[in-house]
Amino acid sequence: MSPSPTKEHQERGWIVPIGGSEDKLHEPTILRRFIEISGGEDARIVVIPTASQLDDTGSRYEGIFRELGAGHCKALPYAERADANRDDWYEILQAATGIFFTGGNQLRISGILGGTRVAQGIRRLNAMGIPVGGTSAGAAILPEHMIAYGSTGGTPRAGMVSLSPGLGLTNRFVIDQHFRERDRLGRLLAALSYNPFAMGIGIDENTAAFISPDNVVHVEGTGTVTVVDVSAVQHTSVSDAGEGDPLCITNVKLHILPEGGRFDLRNFEATPPGVA
Amino acid sequence: MSPSPTKEHQERGWIVPIGGSEDKLHEPTILRRFIEISGGEDARIVVIPTASQLDDTGSRYEGIFRELGAGHCKALPYAERADANRDDWYEILQAATGIFFTGGNQLRISGILGGTRVAQGIRRLNAMGIPVGGTSAGAAILPEHMIAYGSTGGTPRAGMVSLSPGLGLTNRFVIDQHFRERDRLGRLLAALSYNPFAMGIGIDENTAAFISPDNVVHVEGTGTVTVVDVSAVQHTSVSDAGEGDPLCITNVKLHILPEGGRFDLRNFEATPPGVA
Repeated sequence: MSPSPTKEHQERGWIVPIGGSEDKLHEPTILRRFIEISGGEDARIVVIPTASQLDDTGSRYEGIFRELGAGHCKALPYAERADANRDDWYEILQAATGIFFTGGNQLRISGILGGTRVAQGIRRLNAMGIPVGGTSAGAAILPEHMIAYGSTGGTPRAGMVSLSPGLGLTNRFVIDQHFRERDRLGRLLAALSYNPFAMGIGIDENTAAFISPDNVVHVEGTGTVTVVDVSAVQHTSVSDAGEGDPLCITNVKLHILPEGGRFDLRNFEATPPGVA
Repeated sequence: MSPSPTKEHQERGWIVPIGGSEDKLHEPTILRRFIEISGGEDARIVVIPTASQLDDTGSRYEGIFRELGAGHCKALPYAERADANRDDWYEILQAATGIFFTGGNQLRISGILGGTRVAQGIRRLNAMGIPVGGTSAGAAILPEHMIAYGSTGGTPRAGMVSLSPGLGLTNRFVIDQHFRERDRLGRLLAALSYNPFAMGIGIDENTAAFISPDNVVHVEGTGTVTVVDVSAVQHTSVSDAGEGDPLCITNVKLHILPEGGRFDLRNFEATPPGVA
């Protein structure tokens, strides 16, 4: 636990949450960009299909990533906690230049990989510069605090959302996905009102937030990213409201950002597309 | 963000969750020990009564701590987010040798102080060696992941518990309080099953877990501390179970520790009272 003063300063890798239903065939710009930041032709992408209960999710993504130009792609279908002990898979993971979580149920990822050397290894790889991305459930899992369950609707109501510990790559933001399509602004606001220390990032389908090593969100895709900035919130009624009551929250700032838009997580500044 | 290699290694301060209803009059051993680790006659204890909605909670604890021998004690009754900007209070906080959160509703603490310089300041003070404790809601708030709501009962059931971000002093454990009195083993197991990376610490009333700077839990008080060790869990059904269904969790290890018992959070070893 003592510092290693000779080690050079190392930037963490990209964090790439995708809102689900990303285009895999016609204009797969999001997956292409993920391959690019993972090394392109030299990429060794590891797909973790643990969220899914379909047997072919891993092999399907292997095919897609290879077809789109990734040098290598291998799915590691962790399905039980004991799988974390497989040394052959762990070696492949350690050599990854990009890690991708598929959709499904985020509680499968946390329940199966939480607390294992695989979760620790992915955090370490990301800290060392390796990009980690995921779609839908695979996006939700990325931060320290993830939305596990919640109800639909634009109005935040007490008790409408349940958080749980996620993978822990960052605690600067909480992610919600299928954002417009499933009308989730209410549950994201409710989640942030519990403790307004993190930003909220709501991501539409076929849309991604490419979060750079220096903590700038870059939007890509056909929908928008909704940034919910609670850094200036003056009041939340979350502790007083009865179950199901609408919540009072004042001074929330929203940014709706289409492709090319940026949001700087360090100073909370949004920049529209086309502005330098 | 670059390391400061000349800085000496500094130990963090004690973390002291109390299960609620601690004895304040007859045999107040828990509060006395908290005063002792905060400096005794030289202690400057800051009480944060934010969880409570009673006006006299802060002044009541000021009286109790002074009567029990603390050199100084001052309540800082943060009641709105704007209160975090009060420089006079912030100066008092910065000079504290011990910080104590009263009971009430933990979502008041996170909703009012989350993301403010007060929450950041308390994390920094604890990292620099200052003890931080709390009772009931004030215990729940201490870790990174806190139980915000939940139902009663010994059986873990899907959806029976809601987590939210806490103060973030540690992410090694999740705390539950009034543990036997309110039959909370089920909800603590459900919370841990979301992501079995953290230990669970269930604390009875008039009982405390004094967690040393080197991460050993020391039990004090008339009840017990239940340590729920999920580090060897092989399976949880949390992602498959329907709302309200009983959860399957295998290979959970439990330790029930009365006063004098210890649990080492580094190697997961429990030691009964009277054993060196």
